[in-house]
Amino acid sequence: MKDARPLPQYLVQRYQGWKATAHAENKAWFRRLAEEGQRPRTMVISCCDSRVHVSAMFRADGGEFFIHRNIAALVPPYAPDGGNHGTSAAIEYAVTVLKVANLLVVGHSRCGGIKGCHDMCAGLAPELEEKTSFIGRWMDILRPSYDRTEGAATEADRLEAMEKDAVLVSLENLMTFPYVRAAVEAEELALHGLWKDIAEGVVECYDSEAGRFVAI
Amino acid sequence: MKDARPLPQYLVQRYQGWKATAHAENKAWFRRLAEEGQRPRTMVISCCDSRVHVSAMFRADGGEFFIHRNIAALVPPYAPDGGNHGTSAAIEYAVTVLKVANLLVVGHSRCGGIKGCHDMCAGLAPELEEKTSFIGRWMDILRPSYDRTEGAATEADRLEAMEKDAVLVSLENLMTFPYVRAAVEAEELALHGLWKDIAEGVVECYDSEAGRFVAI
Amino acid sequence: MKDARPLPQYLVQRYQGWKATAHAENKAWFRRLAEEGQRPRTMVISCCDSRVHVSAMFRADGGEFFIHRNIAALVPPYAPDGGNHGTSAAIEYAVTVLKVANLLVVGHSRCGGIKGCHDMCAGLAPELEEKTSFIGRWMDILRPSYDRTEGAATEADRLEAMEKDAVLVSLENLMTFPYVRAAVEAEELALHGLWKDIAEGVVECYDSEAGRFVAI
Amino acid sequence: MKDARPLPQYLVQRYQGWKATAHAENKAWFRRLAEEGQRPRTMVISCCDSRVHVSAMFRADGGEFFIHRNIAALVPPYAPDGGNHGTSAAIEYAVTVLKVANLLVVGHSRCGGIKGCHDMCAGLAPELEEKTSFIGRWMDILRPSYDRTEGAATEADRLEAMEKDAVLVSLENLMTFPYVRAAVEAEELALHGLWKDIAEGVVECYDSEAGRFVAI
Repeated sequence: MKDARPLPQYLVQRYQGWKATAHAENKAWFRRLAEEGQRPRTMVISCCDSRVHVSAMFRADGGEFFIHRNIAALVPPYAPDGGNHGTSAAIEYAVTVLKVANLLVVGHSRCGGIKGCHDMCAGLAPELEEKTSFIGRWMDILRPSYDRTEGAATEADRLEAMEKDAVLVSLENLMTFPYVRAAVEAEELALHGLWKDIAEGVVECYDSEAGRFVAI
Repeated sequence: MKDARPLPQYLVQRYQGWKATAHAENKAWFRRLAEEGQRPRTMVISCCDSRVHVSAMFRADGGEFFIHRNIAALVPPYAPDGGNHGTSAAIEYAVTVLKVANLLVVGHSRCGGIKGCHDMCAGLAPELEEKTSFIGRWMDILRPSYDRTEGAATEADRLEAMEKDAVLVSLENLMTFPYVRAAVEAEELALHGLWKDIAEGVVECYDSEAGRFVAI
Repeated sequence: MKDARPLPQYLVQRYQGWKATAHAENKAWFRRLAEEGQRPRTMVISCCDSRVHVSAMFRADGGEFFIHRNIAALVPPYAPDGGNHGTSAAIEYAVTVLKVANLLVVGHSRCGGIKGCHDMCAGLAPELEEKTSFIGRWMDILRPSYDRTEGAATEADRLEAMEKDAVLVSLENLMTFPYVRAAVEAEELALHGLWKDIAEGVVECYDSEAGRFVAI
Repeated sequence: MKDARPLPQYLVQRYQGWKATAHAENKAWFRRLAEEGQRPRTMVISCCDSRVHVSAMFRADGGEFFIHRNIAALVPPYAPDGGNHGTSAAIEYAVTVLKVANLLVVGHSRCGGIKGCHDMCAGLAPELEEKTSFIGRWMDILRPSYDRTEGAATEADRLEAMEKDAVLVSLENLMTFPYVRAAVEAEELALHGLWKDIAEGVVECYDSEAGRFVAI
């Protein structure tokens, strides 16, 4: 692999600082986690967006959260067709191997993936309709949300509605995985749907009785 | 979505503490990031493992890293076949929309995904060969590494060799994405291959001149 | 003291969150508690086990519970022999200085201390018989319970029987403290024996009329 | 045991609320903790005082902290004399069985035990000198601190100095336990000394380089 470059110095320096402080202070724990294996209580499915930082927000340290991050925090439906499904592999590992007790799906405001989906469905982004667009094909998972949010007053409202609906779509798709459904029904796994306003830091949690997201 | 549960109280309390401190201290910045959009310098592809915490290790705060996390930090080859490819969508978004300058692939020791791949290839885990195994099908990406590490003295050596080879496979696969190759060739994007020993906190970076991983 | 280390950063951050929220909201009360002294209504004697969290379970806030926690929530018999008796000191302080009105002894399922006592008495853990084993010498307090539970059908049944009997032994030992007996007889202090199933969260309370533990 | 009373209704009601909410929301995790056993990262030795609530302050949930609480958070010196040493048993269990990675000793302001020790040493509390005084005999562990804080300007200063010195005495005594010393020297265990101002909520951590407590 001739194209790999050395790591930028500012990252090397920060890493060395981390190793001399945070790592040094927790050496024993990290060794035990390495030897005995991880036992995370929680899986988080969150967006790749650089403004969403779930372990900071929930003050989670090494060993607590098993985290999958993809564009828009989406879960595709269960489709054991022999293809390479990274999200589904992460879910299978977390639920069947690690047996996590909680699974959080975390959407957020100003999501670029959701905006792309909106524009694609509105006919404003024909390039996303192309077969070669991985973003477009990934956001296909969310097409139903475009129709389900038709009544929104403004585009901003519709985007927020789609961001929240995406969390529900992912939770619904999670329930199509037989081991997720079985674990939820056996009360061995609890699902949680969250949406974060990245400007104000407000987090809302889906309340299934009220049928809407409510600030925590 | 009737299966969503309220967030456990301990996470709500930790979140409220974060909001009153870390968020409150950075309100202005988070608002700007929301209004003007993210502009991350770096994309990171890392493992879901709860013991690998790249933003802590590199002291990255909101806005710096666009992070995709999947099992074993793998990148599949470029395959614009119309399917839902989450990893490829994240790469396309980071490189073509966000135009990140650096892309880090971060493997690690004691990786459960790599162990699964090893066992599958060694005939020890027939269940991973089944079509319905998302983990197995995801780890298919890494089958060549099993053969390439045949000479290892012990199983532990081979696992570490596979963990490091997986980083190179991912970097090679990245170069099959036309926009990644173009950006690398135009020197607009630099690729970096890392491997972290989770027990000791040592990070090694692939040195393409030396042809091996070297501690940073 | 050259061996003290800085507090891990994740605990510092969580603390700062607590200070900015829970503490800030209760500043006046905590100041009064500091100036006027504590006046807890209840003493709790509970196990050190990380899975037993009595103040959470009874929703107790600062100032309510005076809590002593030791291995297996044991109370040794009254023995004013001039030695360092931490449990007895805590009881003396709670009953004679603070004059608590209630005293709860809280045992629980899957108790490692009780299991150790069982194995020691069954001849399966000779290392616990050694003079240097503090765990063994501490669990000596409970040896009578091993004999008293002989009739149990299975080991699991016997362990649960010992866990519950341990609560009764502790209550009996409490009555050997002259000020405890005097306060109980004057109806200034009520004793309560509890056992918690940590898996299911069921709490049982000893009913002295029925002569057995009953779910509350 | 005829002296056990039913639990007061207000506690029963709070418990039922906890079971229907916090427990119900975490059922799966508590079951796993019960089946697979606890694996706490941290042991805490803290005071029985009702105003000191370490798990709240550090936002720790079930499974995180193994907690021993006694009067003044004291650790006696290693003394394997065959007696019932509850504190030593808890330390032995945490370090040799659970292999915790961190051990926090947490002192605090306005500590009644420390005040008793001060008064006893100053000749103001002859009743604490009696052989039958468990509080006095327990606080004997701290007599050296009275002498070491002679230079304090006021009684309030001296009490605070004794409270902080008590933390150091406990850390020193911890190092007399052979397995504690071995684990510290092998960097498998880190010790931390803390003192909390209960009025203001300020926490100070002993800084062994500076040789004094510093606010975190």
